Amino acid sequence: MPIDPSAVGQTGGPVTRKWTSKDALLYALGVGAGTQELRFTTENSQNIQQRVLPTFAVIIGGGGAPFNKIGDFNPAMLVHGEQGIELLGEIPPEGEVESVGKISAIWDKGKGAVVEMTSESTLVATGEPLLRTRMSAFIRGEGGFGGERGPSASFEAPTRAPDHQVAYETGVDQALLYRLSGDRNPLHSDPAFAKMGGFDKPILHGLCTYGFTGRALVNTICDGDPSRFRSMDGRFSKPVLPGDTLTILMWVDGSECTFQTKNQDGDVVIDQGKMTFA
Amino acid sequence: MPIDPSAVGQTGGPVTRKWTSKDALLYALGVGAGTQELRFTTENSQNIQQRVLPTFAVIIGGGGAPFNKIGDFNPAMLVHGEQGIELLGEIPPEGEVESVGKISAIWDKGKGAVVEMTSESTLVATGEPLLRTRMSAFIRGEGGFGGERGPSASFEAPTRAPDHQVAYETGVDQALLYRLSGDRNPLHSDPAFAKMGGFDKPILHGLCTYGFTGRALVNTICDGDPSRFRSMDGRFSKPVLPGDTLTILMWVDGSECTFQTKNQDGDVVIDQGKMTFA
Repeated sequence: MPIDPSAVGQTGGPVTRKWTSKDALLYALGVGAGTQELRFTTENSQNIQQRVLPTFAVIIGGGGAPFNKIGDFNPAMLVHGEQGIELLGEIPPEGEVESVGKISAIWDKGKGAVVEMTSESTLVATGEPLLRTRMSAFIRGEGGFGGERGPSASFEAPTRAPDHQVAYETGVDQALLYRLSGDRNPLHSDPAFAKMGGFDKPILHGLCTYGFTGRALVNTICDGDPSRFRSMDGRFSKPVLPGDTLTILMWVDGSECTFQTKNQDGDVVIDQGKMTFA
Repeated sequence: MPIDPSAVGQTGGPVTRKWTSKDALLYALGVGAGTQELRFTTENSQNIQQRVLPTFAVIIGGGGAPFNKIGDFNPAMLVHGEQGIELLGEIPPEGEVESVGKISAIWDKGKGAVVEMTSESTLVATGEPLLRTRMSAFIRGEGGFGGERGPSASFEAPTRAPDHQVAYETGVDQALLYRLSGDRNPLHSDPAFAKMGGFDKPILHGLCTYGFTGRALVNTICDGDPSRFRSMDGRFSKPVLPGDTLTILMWVDGSECTFQTKNQDGDVVIDQGKMTFA
């Protein structure tokens, strides 16, 4: 059985996920936070309360997405297309969420299918919704089932110079550290496996690049205050290698920020970025 | 009540300590292992079995040391003096040990007291002893109780050029990562706390420097094979700052290796190093 387009609307969960202060610290280091961001990297510095990076939402959220109901496909043909998060409150340093997921769309792109999953996570301690995630995956070879193509993105980065621009270096060992937050896919760590996947060497997790980008956004646009961060959406457009330098370009318009992330060669690695803030 | 010299011989424990593969990977990254040492930093690389750095012994071992039986003293006056480990077998990637500790010596150095603790850890799965640790602490202001001075180290580094020499850079965020293996003393992370302790900025954990050094030893002397590593002893002689470059000098004599660790200014940071191997 290939992809099943009638799976749209299928739900999964609830599943629960607990996290500790240590998980949040490890994630922050995994996306490059360091001695300049002790609020994200320490829990016991004087007069500095531990806070959690908004993009930690991709670690604790996303639960209940019913991947098993999409149909049969070769997981090696799946690439992460887009990722969105929406924060309804600030993520506490430790806690537990209960998440339910849904297949929200399946599109026929001809050469492949796009599957979109959404998930909503409720903070168990309060019973209140804490965050939502949206991710889309492109599955090569699974198109042509006669479905709709879905909306086309018509995005153009503003032509004016960016209002803000931040450059962060990733470390050559960045993926080895980021993977300890959960995604142990050897594509990001094992040179032999990466070669089989068609890459010269292991590539950085797309969500690690997403985390570096979100960190730039919270530090620059929200003055380092995660409670002002509302949402972030972007499309992965090119692999990043550990050691690459990421430059995040930001254009602010009211309470919305358009962004792009580029590598040191000027290639766009996250495109169509939209972030909202208070 | 000050230090109680009659506490020598007092025991503590048994205490148990479990660890997971993730703990071992996190430790390896904390002491600078990376993409060149996938056996220590990954668990799922093709044809590479996960192994554990011998110095992980300081994380899982040392249990049961009866610090509460030394007497009353100001913990801020304590500095880590020496650290030794002895491996009776190779540490598995996950497991549980049961440890018993002992106050093995208390010496009167006049300006302070030296307290030495030993501990032995048994692998619960086999019931066999896995490792022993020895640590000595210098407690300023607690000498002058009329005790013996104890043995004086008469150590001189060999005058010939080192047989091996390895340089490792520590990262500016090294202490933030190493601390997630357990030692959350803010001396290593909080600039305000470090200043109160008389340091311009947070210093690296002595045991992190010890781990970098042990990593150089296993990679150079044991060809990366932890099962050949038998013991390692050294004395902390100067603080290291995150970002320092550590050079480990090694002189091999049969199955024994004398070593010193220096910083980029040529200052000795671990002195009187002795390591044995098979």
